[in-house]
Amino acid sequence: MTKTTAENIWKAVGKIRRSAPLVHNITNYVVMNTTANALLALGASPVMAHAEEEVREMVGLAGALVVNLGTISAPWARAARIAMEEAEKRKTPVVFDPVGAGATSYRTDTYRELVTSFPPSIIRGNASEIMALAGAAAAATKGVDSTSSSRDALEAAAALAGELGGAVCVSGETDYIIGRGSKVRIENGHPLMARITGLGCAASALCGAFAAVEPDPVAAAAGAMAVLGIAGEEAAEKASGPGSFQYRLLDALHLLDEETIRRRLKAADDR
Amino acid sequence: MTKTTAENIWKAVGKIRRSAPLVHNITNYVVMNTTANALLALGASPVMAHAEEEVREMVGLAGALVVNLGTISAPWARAARIAMEEAEKRKTPVVFDPVGAGATSYRTDTYRELVTSFPPSIIRGNASEIMALAGAAAAATKGVDSTSSSRDALEAAAALAGELGGAVCVSGETDYIIGRGSKVRIENGHPLMARITGLGCAASALCGAFAAVEPDPVAAAAGAMAVLGIAGEEAAEKASGPGSFQYRLLDALHLLDEETIRRRLKAADDR
Amino acid sequence: MTKTTAENIWKAVGKIRRSAPLVHNITNYVVMNTTANALLALGASPVMAHAEEEVREMVGLAGALVVNLGTISAPWARAARIAMEEAEKRKTPVVFDPVGAGATSYRTDTYRELVTSFPPSIIRGNASEIMALAGAAAAATKGVDSTSSSRDALEAAAALAGELGGAVCVSGETDYIIGRGSKVRIENGHPLMARITGLGCAASALCGAFAAVEPDPVAAAAGAMAVLGIAGEEAAEKASGPGSFQYRLLDALHLLDEETIRRRLKAADDR
Repeated sequence: MTKTTAENIWKAVGKIRRSAPLVHNITNYVVMNTTANALLALGASPVMAHAEEEVREMVGLAGALVVNLGTISAPWARAARIAMEEAEKRKTPVVFDPVGAGATSYRTDTYRELVTSFPPSIIRGNASEIMALAGAAAAATKGVDSTSSSRDALEAAAALAGELGGAVCVSGETDYIIGRGSKVRIENGHPLMARITGLGCAASALCGAFAAVEPDPVAAAAGAMAVLGIAGEEAAEKASGPGSFQYRLLDALHLLDEETIRRRLKAADDR
Repeated sequence: MTKTTAENIWKAVGKIRRSAPLVHNITNYVVMNTTANALLALGASPVMAHAEEEVREMVGLAGALVVNLGTISAPWARAARIAMEEAEKRKTPVVFDPVGAGATSYRTDTYRELVTSFPPSIIRGNASEIMALAGAAAAATKGVDSTSSSRDALEAAAALAGELGGAVCVSGETDYIIGRGSKVRIENGHPLMARITGLGCAASALCGAFAAVEPDPVAAAAGAMAVLGIAGEEAAEKASGPGSFQYRLLDALHLLDEETIRRRLKAADDR
Repeated sequence: MTKTTAENIWKAVGKIRRSAPLVHNITNYVVMNTTANALLALGASPVMAHAEEEVREMVGLAGALVVNLGTISAPWARAARIAMEEAEKRKTPVVFDPVGAGATSYRTDTYRELVTSFPPSIIRGNASEIMALAGAAAAATKGVDSTSSSRDALEAAAALAGELGGAVCVSGETDYIIGRGSKVRIENGHPLMARITGLGCAASALCGAFAAVEPDPVAAAAGAMAVLGIAGEEAAEKASGPGSFQYRLLDALHLLDEETIRRRLKAADDR
């Protein structure tokens, strides 16, 4: 079903730029600024809101909800729960980013409780995080960085997708997106992407933008990963380190056009 | 009275650079870093503090207080209340930024309660926010982005200024600053300013720096909007997207000189 | 004992790059993103975590703990206490940054209570902060910026180092690092470093990375201050303001090599 082609990705980017969907982020302190800028650079409209008093109402305005408790604490976990419940009621797509799952039991347990109570449309994490969230015994994490390759987490991702029903994206040198009966591989990106903080979080935020305009969660996640990876390649060409890479990545997302996607996309629909 | 001339704006910038006034910000997570940097680039000295235990004492050290509850929650609203009360007592100028007013009733109600209890020297928001804060029925907001032009909010701004007594600034393609009996129009700026997050918040922070050295709130707000718009024009000339625009804007604020203000200022005192 | 030579500093950088130690930061909202990026650019692996429910477990994974309550509030102070207690138990090095000590009594008292209960390996602050933390009567602070030169705080730093036993670093135009029986002066750096927010915080974070691989706290702090100062000099050469300086600093940390350290290092071991 899913067709991860430049044409389809470009169509979704066009929809995002034309409709500027509101993406409601309950996200961590480290990346609030940079993910808001990544969403703006792509063409979406970000809002960050986490008060229990208002998240329900904010979800009602949004085209997608992105939950990322990377700097978790109890009030944020409560707000995420309320927002995810509301999103489920409204059939608003939810992207869940299990930052640092496996690092502490508080994170793993909180995340696990949230995703099993309100199964997200898309879960995106690195290999360690996906394995920890799936309950895989082999999961090993180092703070928020993965100690495994994305390939190692394929089984865990498939199990999670089977259990919860949405798309599961394992990002790494190769990104895998797995849904019921479909699997996409994206091989775009650049090593400098691991040298600045929050690019995984930006990927999840862009999944939110795509999910707001693209109903198939596998296609939405694949589009987001491809677009970020391609922008990363563009940025890396002229960067002389992680600092210049970071601003060039925003420029590249802003300047992204169909020709660039067509030329750079390295995607495969495996079935 | 107000004379929005390059000479007057440059005088205020000089005062900021010489005295480096401490600007106490109770501001949102998304923009803490970028507004601190904007204040430093202009020449002011930023401090971010929001604990109920210390805001009163911090206000006592500051030349201005900037309140921006863009990622609102109950403890921050309580801290804002204490700080605004203390600022009123000390006659320290307060800038209030009603980020996302109209998006949720929690925001609108909290903001409304704060500004009516402790009328700020300057309120700065986009059209939707000013209309929502003024209670205008037509207010429509999309998260934190305006769906109206600044012109649409002129009546609401005048009502708010009349009710609360300070200056009300509606920012947009044209910025309007309205006080009792005075109105200034600023037409500086660049479309890229809407493509990075937090420039409205930076504008409010700069209003704080100007308010610390300039007693007339209309003149202070006009100076801040002009300076940010001019720096934005300078930055946009060499930027290739929102990423490079963002760092060039800080450079431009830092390099700002009288000649540049004189050459670029597009201001009109309407009365 | 300590030998602040290019060779020793380069060895420590090599260890950081090879082992990528996990540095657990309980740090302020303003600098979370930029300090994470500074740690990544140097080669360390940052994690930001502050929930009381998980800090103990996270400390257990980390090579160093950095505590910086620059946007202090009660829950963060409680988390810092738990984390510092756990670090003491595990003999994990702790870096403490007393941001804004002296500005409010809440900060000064909280910091004082923490460092006397769990003496850190390294305390790093500007002159005002170190004087306030040492209880020096002459301490004067302006928000989070120092109003004294680092030289003025030497006595306070020595008293603090004598009382608590670790290394105390006073940063400024000249950085002094004082331990029991040793004193190092570093004269690297550039005035633009004071024009962007959070470089003091980045210095403390880098102290954490060095402390994770270098057991002598004076040598660890000296290495961190030297490396940041040298990267600042490199960045300033091509920067046209604080915005471009900021991204070039990350690039310079990433590109840092032995030859650059050798050429630029201005350190003296005074005894």
